[in-house]
Amino acid sequence: MKLESFLFEIRNNVGHITLNQPERGNPFDARFCREFKEIANECDENPEVRAVLIDSNGPYFSVGGDLKTFLGDRDGLPRFIKSATSDLHSGVSRLARGDAPVILACDALAAGGAVAIVAAADYALLSEKASVYAAFSGIGFSCDSGSSYFMPRRVGQRKAFDFYLRNQKWSAEQCLEYGLASEIIPSEQLTEKALALAEELAQGPTYTYGQIKNLFHSSQENTLEAQLEQEARALADCTRRDDTWNAVNSVAKKQKPVFNYK
Amino acid sequence: MKLESFLFEIRNNVGHITLNQPERGNPFDARFCREFKEIANECDENPEVRAVLIDSNGPYFSVGGDLKTFLGDRDGLPRFIKSATSDLHSGVSRLARGDAPVILACDALAAGGAVAIVAAADYALLSEKASVYAAFSGIGFSCDSGSSYFMPRRVGQRKAFDFYLRNQKWSAEQCLEYGLASEIIPSEQLTEKALALAEELAQGPTYTYGQIKNLFHSSQENTLEAQLEQEARALADCTRRDDTWNAVNSVAKKQKPVFNYK
Amino acid sequence: MKLESFLFEIRNNVGHITLNQPERGNPFDARFCREFKEIANECDENPEVRAVLIDSNGPYFSVGGDLKTFLGDRDGLPRFIKSATSDLHSGVSRLARGDAPVILACDALAAGGAVAIVAAADYALLSEKASVYAAFSGIGFSCDSGSSYFMPRRVGQRKAFDFYLRNQKWSAEQCLEYGLASEIIPSEQLTEKALALAEELAQGPTYTYGQIKNLFHSSQENTLEAQLEQEARALADCTRRDDTWNAVNSVAKKQKPVFNYK
Repeated sequence: MKLESFLFEIRNNVGHITLNQPERGNPFDARFCREFKEIANECDENPEVRAVLIDSNGPYFSVGGDLKTFLGDRDGLPRFIKSATSDLHSGVSRLARGDAPVILACDALAAGGAVAIVAAADYALLSEKASVYAAFSGIGFSCDSGSSYFMPRRVGQRKAFDFYLRNQKWSAEQCLEYGLASEIIPSEQLTEKALALAEELAQGPTYTYGQIKNLFHSSQENTLEAQLEQEARALADCTRRDDTWNAVNSVAKKQKPVFNYK
Repeated sequence: MKLESFLFEIRNNVGHITLNQPERGNPFDARFCREFKEIANECDENPEVRAVLIDSNGPYFSVGGDLKTFLGDRDGLPRFIKSATSDLHSGVSRLARGDAPVILACDALAAGGAVAIVAAADYALLSEKASVYAAFSGIGFSCDSGSSYFMPRRVGQRKAFDFYLRNQKWSAEQCLEYGLASEIIPSEQLTEKALALAEELAQGPTYTYGQIKNLFHSSQENTLEAQLEQEARALADCTRRDDTWNAVNSVAKKQKPVFNYK
Repeated sequence: MKLESFLFEIRNNVGHITLNQPERGNPFDARFCREFKEIANECDENPEVRAVLIDSNGPYFSVGGDLKTFLGDRDGLPRFIKSATSDLHSGVSRLARGDAPVILACDALAAGGAVAIVAAADYALLSEKASVYAAFSGIGFSCDSGSSYFMPRRVGQRKAFDFYLRNQKWSAEQCLEYGLASEIIPSEQLTEKALALAEELAQGPTYTYGQIKNLFHSSQENTLEAQLEQEARALADCTRRDDTWNAVNSVAKKQKPVFNYK
């Protein structure tokens, strides 16, 4: 699939996804959603990808939904929502469930569904130029892209609910204070530091990272006992991998372990 | 139903519920629970109600359960609990699931089940005179009214558990610090500000607010994928409403949208 | 069962569990897990136990898993994980579900699975000498012992995930700031204060405490309505107990209630 909405390359085991329609503000239109799904599939299936970095080009990280595509055909609007979210939500799920940790670097305004992408990332690195804007309820929309799943898990229910109900905008500082941002990094160092974190994580025990990611996703909906059993099974699965076996033996010999995603 | 425990009126699309047995401390007795359920039903069914404001008259917001009604008939006590909670819990659920945002104004001590009502509200505005008292375990009661559902979602499990286990009392300031209160407002301005917030929200996209409320309720018990699909369906439903269609078109023309709960 | 890994005694209604292989660093080996399960069963079944205190002897609270037992037999490793967690996880569940509140006193480094024991405790009292170390992903292990259940509930998903993914070590101060520790107590007073808290709680309404514990465990995975009904049923069950009936009558007479776990 030829990409129009994104750049995508794999280097040093990092799948680097860049939102790349700067002149349009990187809108979440139908094409964007389709390409996002395909890239997420590639990141999940290609064993070269052991960490994912998401960033953007242009003056907006993303404006979110494209207001223009909503106009004109009233009957078509709910159909468009269902079609676009089929793709977009599948991509959100693939990245969330995939083994590779997801690092997001946000250097500008993220609005609407893009806020959910910030919240969903395992590490959300924001510059002082970043901000988030709810956007949805301003046009009578409820929220999508996992907003209602990830935001309460980052900032708590009171703050997340207020954000969407009263259509708020938060500065980078507020994002850090509330727990949405992992860290604030000066704009001119953002790309470099985000890439360094992605490359560091790409050398870790990737399969194990995937187990931890999925245990954390199930943590809130599982009973204690189901979660304990899932932990036991995940850990046993890890110990069957070469990476884990080699690491146990390296650390016993006081050597630094090397992980090859085997 | 003639109200004895409450005042209730609808004005400017705000359903205004006032606990109104000041001389008795607004206890949660059988009549209170029945009336609460009926008022909650009315707020949910009457399309004139697009926001709910809960406040109280008298020196206590509420003392919670009425100790006197517990005495005398030992066999009757568990039956009373089951009967009263049938009404009370149904009311809690109706307000939580209903489209109208719930604003609570608390200017005095809230004890026992009343703390859950504070926690359940979408916006809990407290004056410096407000405080909350667990009360339950002091008489060997576990907690009800949604205490164990809402409190951990507001203040985290450690703090909420300690509150109920060691039967604590928290000042308004502690409620704000821990995340139970949305805001502290000087006592003499509390009614005015709470009403202003309720009236502001009553002009918002009410149906959409209901979708957001319900997405937030399901957020913690749903898997990621179930929540994503629920988001897609809720958003598609919003786009079928006149309010949302009109708002999209207004905002595209740089006009302020008007919402009529249609 | 003769204990090798622990000391265990019951005094003043406190079940006092001490990790007691100081020279080995109190490792979570097969014997440890089996004994832990048996002690947890005893605490849950013996009505003399109305609070549980967990502490440790030696320079480590616990080093967690025993690296040496992982070496040598690759095929045996996943089997060992499954066998050991059968015991360990059953013990975690019994203590979490049992009526007796669990107080933990940590005066040294807790690593790996021991961090989950700290997080699982209802009250985690740490001295300034305490610290926690993730340990798992350093050898390609995902986490166990309820780590992924309890840690996000204490410190939020962002911090908990980072802890396990990047194999972090947190000081006692960080544990307090993030919400893992309930309190920091000077090392020389730790035992005394932890015992005082355990003895205080051991005189409370033990059955009611168990109901509150279990309501909090189900809080996140239940729908609102299921949780409300569980609250109603738990409260009705409490009111059938002598302790609760006597307490209601004592408090009505302005007398201090006495609870006998009846």
